[in-house]
Amino acid sequence: MSFEIIKRYKTFDGETLFCQHESQSTKTIMKFSVYLPDKIEKIESAIIWLSGLTCTEENFITKAGAQKYLSHTKTMIICPDTSPRGLGIPGEDDSYDFGSGASFYVNATTENYRDHYQMYDYISLDLLKLLREDFGVTKYSIMGHSMGGHGALMIGLKEKDLFHSISAFSPIVNPVECAWGKKAFNGYLGSNEEGWKSYDTCELVKSGAKHKNPILIDQGLQDEFYPDQLLTKNLESIAIELGLDLQVYYREGYDHSYYFISSFIESHIQFHLNYLK
Amino acid sequence: MSFEIIKRYKTFDGETLFCQHESQSTKTIMKFSVYLPDKIEKIESAIIWLSGLTCTEENFITKAGAQKYLSHTKTMIICPDTSPRGLGIPGEDDSYDFGSGASFYVNATTENYRDHYQMYDYISLDLLKLLREDFGVTKYSIMGHSMGGHGALMIGLKEKDLFHSISAFSPIVNPVECAWGKKAFNGYLGSNEEGWKSYDTCELVKSGAKHKNPILIDQGLQDEFYPDQLLTKNLESIAIELGLDLQVYYREGYDHSYYFISSFIESHIQFHLNYLK
Repeated sequence: MSFEIIKRYKTFDGETLFCQHESQSTKTIMKFSVYLPDKIEKIESAIIWLSGLTCTEENFITKAGAQKYLSHTKTMIICPDTSPRGLGIPGEDDSYDFGSGASFYVNATTENYRDHYQMYDYISLDLLKLLREDFGVTKYSIMGHSMGGHGALMIGLKEKDLFHSISAFSPIVNPVECAWGKKAFNGYLGSNEEGWKSYDTCELVKSGAKHKNPILIDQGLQDEFYPDQLLTKNLESIAIELGLDLQVYYREGYDHSYYFISSFIESHIQFHLNYLK
Repeated sequence: MSFEIIKRYKTFDGETLFCQHESQSTKTIMKFSVYLPDKIEKIESAIIWLSGLTCTEENFITKAGAQKYLSHTKTMIICPDTSPRGLGIPGEDDSYDFGSGASFYVNATTENYRDHYQMYDYISLDLLKLLREDFGVTKYSIMGHSMGGHGALMIGLKEKDLFHSISAFSPIVNPVECAWGKKAFNGYLGSNEEGWKSYDTCELVKSGAKHKNPILIDQGLQDEFYPDQLLTKNLESIAIELGLDLQVYYREGYDHSYYFISSFIESHIQFHLNYLK
């Protein structure tokens, strides 16, 4: 077993685990949580959940209520932390939207961040290796929320042969066009905006990225970040133009919180289970 | 409206609210959360949830996943904070099991606590008044966890005509016999142990307390507090001896956490809905 179990809790006949392991990509200890359904020996597939700004490996697994819908399936879920931590990089902990808890799931190239903030590789290489070798998983799907919704769409499209299905809650679909994304990409990738495009979902789709299965998005209409940071409509119009099969559900009255996620997590899990069969 | 809404989140077609109001019993501002099902105007009944040591009005409503099971019913849930706070009483914030976050739901009589720690009255008078006058509720049930399980059993039995049904997760059933209870009752009620008995579920049942409906308890067998603090078997044997209809489910592998509560909350809510019809 390549990881250490820190805490474990029986949940809906299965188990919620909090774990840590050494990441080859980030060269740090990384934390993650998993939910293993009741028949661990029968696990065949995994959903990766990527969380949003300020979150850790804990938010989703304690608040979303996902365990119930996985408990008697052959699918586990794994929820990594949102960045390396405690590296002593100047300014690393100064803001909620950059550095610790805010990796944006890219491979950083700037001097201060390139040694450890290799989160794209952490998700697409290290986590998949762990799932394959320690859990025997052979099929993967990916989903996330906000910054993690950006991560899920972006990684899912770039690694389209690895992931059977992709979904997101309230994703940042066009980071090169919003303040959160510009700050993060500038800090992790430098000032050359051309280099940002390969981590931007809208730009990827413009360049021809597609997926064999429909992509599911849920977006709350009372989400305070919807108009200026998430820019859902940008992706929707590009998808229509270029024939990407995108299903966006706009939800009246819902905001950016886990109360929104918990209300619709069942439909996202069912969506992924359908393609992981 | 006798309360102020601090935050509101659409959840499963209904609304999760965080609120505060002035309590006549504690003479403080008290916070609480509620979940209102989708058709607010049709609400007829309420479940009161009492939380355990260290909790606030937030833990249950964010972690238990209860909203899903109430969303299309005529029943709301209300989750009060676990004590008055910020009173400047010497030692009030010094320990996790006494003072702030640890009221044990009694009416305190000791000098430092009697002016404000009137939590029995807060629950059985103020909260019920609020539910009746602000939400039009006419039927009530009560449940809780650990210290709040003690509160639910104890208040439910003492106010048996007010509450249609009673349930608890991992309750402290015999506080006069465990370290948590002795410390709390000594601090809130003084050293005369005779006076403690009217707040102890086992002692109440010994004195003839009954309820018109069965009482439901779920207890995890890997709960670290089960052997020394919760003492479930004490209540079970008294109930058998005296003919109290008590249904105790011992759950293999489950602990004291919200992962346990979330796994079985559906059955508790269905239990109460059945008696609140």
